[in-house]
Amino acid sequence: MLVTCLDLEGVLFPEVWINVAEKTGIKDLRLTTRDIADYDQLMQYRLGIIEKNNLTLTDIQETIATMRPFPGAVEFLDWLRDLGQVIILSDTFEEFAKPIMKMLKMPTIFCHSLGVDDRGIITSYHLRLDDAKKKAVQALRQLNFKIIAAGDSFNDISMLKEADFGAFYCPPTEIAAKFPELPVTNNYEELKKTFSDYLAG
Amino acid sequence: MLVTCLDLEGVLFPEVWINVAEKTGIKDLRLTTRDIADYDQLMQYRLGIIEKNNLTLTDIQETIATMRPFPGAVEFLDWLRDLGQVIILSDTFEEFAKPIMKMLKMPTIFCHSLGVDDRGIITSYHLRLDDAKKKAVQALRQLNFKIIAAGDSFNDISMLKEADFGAFYCPPTEIAAKFPELPVTNNYEELKKTFSDYLAG
Repeated sequence: MLVTCLDLEGVLFPEVWINVAEKTGIKDLRLTTRDIADYDQLMQYRLGIIEKNNLTLTDIQETIATMRPFPGAVEFLDWLRDLGQVIILSDTFEEFAKPIMKMLKMPTIFCHSLGVDDRGIITSYHLRLDDAKKKAVQALRQLNFKIIAAGDSFNDISMLKEADFGAFYCPPTEIAAKFPELPVTNNYEELKKTFSDYLAG
Repeated sequence: MLVTCLDLEGVLFPEVWINVAEKTGIKDLRLTTRDIADYDQLMQYRLGIIEKNNLTLTDIQETIATMRPFPGAVEFLDWLRDLGQVIILSDTFEEFAKPIMKMLKMPTIFCHSLGVDDRGIITSYHLRLDDAKKKAVQALRQLNFKIIAAGDSFNDISMLKEADFGAFYCPPTEIAAKFPELPVTNNYEELKKTFSDYLAG
């Protein structure tokens, strides 16, 4: 049985933090795992900015409500969900993911969660576990699933390498260059072909 | 983060084999894991009957296409999928599960697969792994998910016991009597209340 593990932001949905940065005008929120590979460092940086600007969870959820999956993302997911099971492995938070999953027809997602104070301001984040994407792929392989995977950034590398087959999807050039062993795809048709070719043996 | 693990047949959808027995008039196909606790013994018995009666995969899929989820099953799943992630853990086969998942709005399912010969007759089955439900719950708990679970039969017991919280759903009286430590629920409202009470701590 097949499970496809997919990154969310950058693969199926635009980067939430970048859109929050644009909507709020807080440019410092533009940085993502593409810019800072260490996730805790990135999140502590974001929490500092959130505190300074009194940004609430509701503010961010309102931004997410105005966003839409990339064109073709839902149809691509439909195609994958016809092939086998799909589990989205993301370093986002369930509070952000919930409205996004509804837009994607409710695929399963494994991610993290947030801590919010009485004022509604995000004050902490709770990683479900370290290197969660890689460990999810390991766990699924131990359950005898065949795993194919796609992602775009630093935090996807261990997932892509742990899978039976992993491919980049629209990665920044400098990240792809660091991992020449991983095939690069740049649109859903290319990724479908790359997955299909692998599955055809 | 929460994952609900649910059995499929008897909980969300009627027993496929019982319906095949009724549609084909082959009474011996009525037996389920409720009757024969050893799954391999049960499946070898079914394969013998299938061979003797020249029953094809298409015959069974045509029966499945006439079946529907239990009344309220889709709404119950919607409720659970709003609470957290849902993974159906079933000893059915992906060839049977595919049309059923479409009727249930495509939740994720972990199950097994079938071998079919040139004539379309089911000649073998491939267990993804032994005690697959229990091992799936163990793997998910290792990924730091909180697991609640429900099932109705012998092959659900290890899943229900491995979960943080497990409950019977419409079990046969004699099975429930053997495991008095597991709470019994008899409709979706009862199961929702039982899960909600547990989650409220």
